[in-house]
Amino acid sequence: MLDPHAQIVRRASDMRGYYADEQALEQLITAHDDPIHYETFESPVPEEYGQVKFCISRLYPGKVGDEYFMTKGHYHAVVETGEAYLGLRGQGLMLMKTAEGACQWEAFAPGKLIYVPPYWAHRSVNTGDEPLISLCLYPGDAGHSYGDIKSEGFPRRVFQRNGQVVVS
Amino acid sequence: MLDPHAQIVRRASDMRGYYADEQALEQLITAHDDPIHYETFESPVPEEYGQVKFCISRLYPGKVGDEYFMTKGHYHAVVETGEAYLGLRGQGLMLMKTAEGACQWEAFAPGKLIYVPPYWAHRSVNTGDEPLISLCLYPGDAGHSYGDIKSEGFPRRVFQRNGQVVVS
Repeated sequence: MLDPHAQIVRRASDMRGYYADEQALEQLITAHDDPIHYETFESPVPEEYGQVKFCISRLYPGKVGDEYFMTKGHYHAVVETGEAYLGLRGQGLMLMKTAEGACQWEAFAPGKLIYVPPYWAHRSVNTGDEPLISLCLYPGDAGHSYGDIKSEGFPRRVFQRNGQVVVS
Repeated sequence: MLDPHAQIVRRASDMRGYYADEQALEQLITAHDDPIHYETFESPVPEEYGQVKFCISRLYPGKVGDEYFMTKGHYHAVVETGEAYLGLRGQGLMLMKTAEGACQWEAFAPGKLIYVPPYWAHRSVNTGDEPLISLCLYPGDAGHSYGDIKSEGFPRRVFQRNGQVVVS
């Protein structure tokens, strides 16, 4: 059902500009031959109104400096569309923000569904020691948009400090 | 996340007119005090364009005569909307039909996603010995419609014959 040709791969080098510690990211890219950071496997469902697109997302574990690995995050091109995420494996947080500056987060857990309402940009963060794997479902006409994410980031970042997960 | 107030309960008596063996259904209703046949637990997500509604469906195991327990089945009021079903527990079939008379089916399995494309009416059938539990996700504006299901039924029924699951 999931089309292996519709795989999106993001390597560490694709994440330049996203982490607080740019030097640590460069070290990761060099030391590990630009490793895969996360990848998604998309359903072959048409991208049109009425369809329900679904994908599997796999975000590897690790840290850039003391900041946990994360996805770039995205808005939907059609901003009034939401998205459902079902945790399948691993631990992490879904960080969500609005263009107006609101920020919230919710924990991933296997078997738990996180609902990202319309208008909220969303980014997955892997706070565990294994891949964070989730099933994502969204309206076929939603589309993706990075909007202000690369220039503005999210209002919060997720770090490991003294062995704890800290959102700051 | 799932609103216990948004529970839909279908009892055996709600299924009059759906099974081949009407007498066996009446015996079931009488002998077991009109037992719950299936129930759904709906998310509190608004029923509007752009949202992703989700629900948990639980269909009990059993037979009416030699026909496996099933749901009524439904089209969507907005016929060009699809629906994704993720098997969580149990065994069964998703029967699908179009208004033009096409009929297909696909097996449920825990962890397997079944995609019901736009325009297809769909009905779950429990062919196992335990509840068939699935997670359903569909566009917020999809709505439900029974269309021709009560008058026409589905082109196929699912029976147990000689210990085998038979679609005929």
